[in-house]
Amino acid sequence: MATVTLIGDADASPRVAAVFADIRATRKSDFVNNFWRALAVDPDGLERTWAEVKAVMVAPGSLDPLTRELIYIAVSIANGCSYCVHSHTAAARAKGMTGAQHGELLAIVGLAGKTNHLATALQVPVDPAFDAAAPG
Amino acid sequence: MATVTLIGDADASPRVAAVFADIRATRKSDFVNNFWRALAVDPDGLERTWAEVKAVMVAPGSLDPLTRELIYIAVSIANGCSYCVHSHTAAARAKGMTGAQHGELLAIVGLAGKTNHLATALQVPVDPAFDAAAPG
Amino acid sequence: MATVTLIGDADASPRVAAVFADIRATRKSDFVNNFWRALAVDPDGLERTWAEVKAVMVAPGSLDPLTRELIYIAVSIANGCSYCVHSHTAAARAKGMTGAQHGELLAIVGLAGKTNHLATALQVPVDPAFDAAAPG
Amino acid sequence: MATVTLIGDADASPRVAAVFADIRATRKSDFVNNFWRALAVDPDGLERTWAEVKAVMVAPGSLDPLTRELIYIAVSIANGCSYCVHSHTAAARAKGMTGAQHGELLAIVGLAGKTNHLATALQVPVDPAFDAAAPG
Amino acid sequence: MATVTLIGDADASPRVAAVFADIRATRKSDFVNNFWRALAVDPDGLERTWAEVKAVMVAPGSLDPLTRELIYIAVSIANGCSYCVHSHTAAARAKGMTGAQHGELLAIVGLAGKTNHLATALQVPVDPAFDAAAPG
Amino acid sequence: MATVTLIGDADASPRVAAVFADIRATRKSDFVNNFWRALAVDPDGLERTWAEVKAVMVAPGSLDPLTRELIYIAVSIANGCSYCVHSHTAAARAKGMTGAQHGELLAIVGLAGKTNHLATALQVPVDPAFDAAAPG
Repeated sequence: MATVTLIGDADASPRVAAVFADIRATRKSDFVNNFWRALAVDPDGLERTWAEVKAVMVAPGSLDPLTRELIYIAVSIANGCSYCVHSHTAAARAKGMTGAQHGELLAIVGLAGKTNHLATALQVPVDPAFDAAAPG
Repeated sequence: MATVTLIGDADASPRVAAVFADIRATRKSDFVNNFWRALAVDPDGLERTWAEVKAVMVAPGSLDPLTRELIYIAVSIANGCSYCVHSHTAAARAKGMTGAQHGELLAIVGLAGKTNHLATALQVPVDPAFDAAAPG
Repeated sequence: MATVTLIGDADASPRVAAVFADIRATRKSDFVNNFWRALAVDPDGLERTWAEVKAVMVAPGSLDPLTRELIYIAVSIANGCSYCVHSHTAAARAKGMTGAQHGELLAIVGLAGKTNHLATALQVPVDPAFDAAAPG
Repeated sequence: MATVTLIGDADASPRVAAVFADIRATRKSDFVNNFWRALAVDPDGLERTWAEVKAVMVAPGSLDPLTRELIYIAVSIANGCSYCVHSHTAAARAKGMTGAQHGELLAIVGLAGKTNHLATALQVPVDPAFDAAAPG
Repeated sequence: MATVTLIGDADASPRVAAVFADIRATRKSDFVNNFWRALAVDPDGLERTWAEVKAVMVAPGSLDPLTRELIYIAVSIANGCSYCVHSHTAAARAKGMTGAQHGELLAIVGLAGKTNHLATALQVPVDPAFDAAAPG
Repeated sequence: MATVTLIGDADASPRVAAVFADIRATRKSDFVNNFWRALAVDPDGLERTWAEVKAVMVAPGSLDPLTRELIYIAVSIANGCSYCVHSHTAAARAKGMTGAQHGELLAIVGLAGKTNHLATALQVPVDPAFDAAAPG
């Protein structure tokens, strides 16, 4: 159960309906997933967040769409967001993620989870060399 | 300051020295960063972790080396591991990450951080469609 | 399913029953939610935690009861505690949180989630001015 | 040290300079804190994030400015973002947070941290009553 | 629902079947829990992770098996991993954890959750004495 | 730098001084570490938190003092609390933690960090057997 009422198409205000329509047009699919139907309780947040998703995940850039999804999944796992892990794993598959790539993603995320804990446990001081490596 | 004493080359036991040598040979660099010098207080953990890094981050696979580093950075940011963010951002640059790619990584990680919080706040139920999308 | 057996009224020891009675008297409601029924497996922890909730969330202070709940929800979201998000969102509504206020809470939490990730990704050094701003 | 080069006023491109100018005008202060100088390496992200901060934290709404900062601090603490804890604690003081209010904020955040861990440890099932409490 | 298809015994490849057989032999039980059946989609990760579990959790060492489980539960709670809290709480009970010990574990984890939040909120500087206490 | 002014002995109010005195008497040491000096800005929180530490970490119980510290460290690592990792690693050493035990702690925490991430990535469903294992 959600902490808010999900907004169905029949209940959508004009502002919400416009975002739902743009989601459908952008994704070339009739499916509007529950995240947007829940966030629709706050039309300002809905518009702002969808606009950001389009700018960051859909617009052309130097990272390909699948790589962007892999990064998104990685953050969602580390943050323990169950819904987001499901939705972005499905999105990655839709963008061509193979079983082998999924396995490698799992291996990297698991290893990073492990070494993140070790580095924090050891309170490892940052090597000066990493600063020199950061010309911006 | 670390919670353990970092192991310098002069203080390395034969087992630790062998790992340090393999790090240098694998990376074709004389630099052994502080993470390994701290973890060296536990030679079992040092050997096991370095072997895993080689298997996951160095061995050939279906994800290219830069993509692997971007995923690693993403997890490290979400886990708040300062050392890891530094070391893997430097590693990504060494593997060719451009300023534009870094900017896009930041944008994706920031957006995921935002929507992770929103999905958790809303307790969005997982769409059944995402299950159908998971044939394994 | 829980990791412990929830304690019903019929199974409550005198110490547990006394806490349940105080919860009911304090909240002017017969409802004792599952958190307390689970924590009741450790009567010491039950007494200590309920006493702390009374001192921090119920006793008079300089922050009004709704503001306290908004802060509680914010922490619970960031920590990914599903139960806590549900229980404190319900509590905030019971204390008068409007739909508009909920929407603004979501917007702030989402933005903070985003900028927290960005500041960690960038490893931004703390401005000296923030120290001067902290006279105690 | 940061993972990027902070952008000083003299090095700001016209797009970055425009955001810095708007920060100064909006806050009625010459001070541009390091977060914006670091994020400036990605002008798209800088513009988008500053616009969101203005919409969420500055524009009129149903939550007063100090309450918004308290929520922001709470999320930042739970996410372990050192920079954000510093910057938003300073911002809250600038908006009038008293020592007593700070003490109560600490008490709520600490208590929430504790009960979040307990609820997760116990895997407490969500009470059906909380769903009924969520008419949206 | 999982993000992958769980691997039943009938569907296990020879490599996966070998790990399942070793799990059964090591634990002296026919039960193979879902974690391994999900991870089996990546046989490399399955083999590597099971080998690590055997080395860290099963092999003789200076910490007894129950203490190891208590530490594992503590990390899993703090990371908000629902599955892991369930599986390792069950494992701790199987290794003799009493109700009193479980109650004390909860109390310590709750207190640590609270003081972790407080120390981060206060940005407490590390005492120099803690460094002197770290001879390695 | 902290977000508050640390309270030195000369600046302690009678309530704060009484807690400092009890810390010294309980620990049989003149050292009062910075956590308490920072928390002293909120005397209510100082008294409540110190009383809880005494009840949970000092009073007799079914877990020995060193095991309690190992659990505390584990939570602090997973929560990324730098100060807490330092202070409780020092406390564990003072209570007899050997280098071998520290190494095993690191190995368990690292492994748990890894499998927590994997279980979340895979969204592994909880085995019904774990429920049967929870008679309370």
